[in-house]
Amino acid sequence: MSNVYDHAYSLEKAVRETDAFKQLKTSFESVMNDEGSKELFNQFRDTQVNLQEKQMSNQEISEAELEEARSVVEAVQQHESISQLMESEQQLNVMINDISKIIMKPLEDLYGASLEEE
Amino acid sequence: MSNVYDHAYSLEKAVRETDAFKQLKTSFESVMNDEGSKELFNQFRDTQVNLQEKQMSNQEISEAELEEARSVVEAVQQHESISQLMESEQQLNVMINDISKIIMKPLEDLYGASLEEE
Repeated sequence: MSNVYDHAYSLEKAVRETDAFKQLKTSFESVMNDEGSKELFNQFRDTQVNLQEKQMSNQEISEAELEEARSVVEAVQQHESISQLMESEQQLNVMINDISKIIMKPLEDLYGASLEEE
Repeated sequence: MSNVYDHAYSLEKAVRETDAFKQLKTSFESVMNDEGSKELFNQFRDTQVNLQEKQMSNQEISEAELEEARSVVEAVQQHESISQLMESEQQLNVMINDISKIIMKPLEDLYGASLEEE
């Protein structure tokens, strides 16, 4: 059993050493080290979380809130270091999703095979 | 970059070799190879998925549906090989969650550190 965790820690180390993670770290720090960028990024994140929560709980989203969200997205898209950060996040997400699919393959093989038989 | 996938495939192989996965495979096959158990297990799974979908979309769940779900859960709990399968699934889930936490640690370290500073 301990063996599987050894492999997980090796993978974690390998993730830290990927270009995708290093790029994300650089992009993230570049945004966080600038007060204006950091504030806009946090505002963007808060707006997204707020909208998501309202959608999940079927609460109404007002026209003013939508308008605010739109203007934050626009500001973020025009902001070079935040755009770069979001692109880096996207690339890392692709990698993490690929890794998850590989690790879940044993379960998929097991459950998938039986579903095909039905 | 290819290195990280090599590590992911090593981890996948290690998952297949764990006692938890082997136990799950045995439990699953034991349920699937018996017509009655297989039918009850599929009925249980369908009931759960149906209830979950209704909850997610805020649809009303009738008293009759709740009653049916209760009786299926009861039948499953009294069924030895299905109970064993659910316990095996639970154990594998714990392992998969632990692995996920390890792999997501680089991201948690990166984002967590900045949140503490706020």
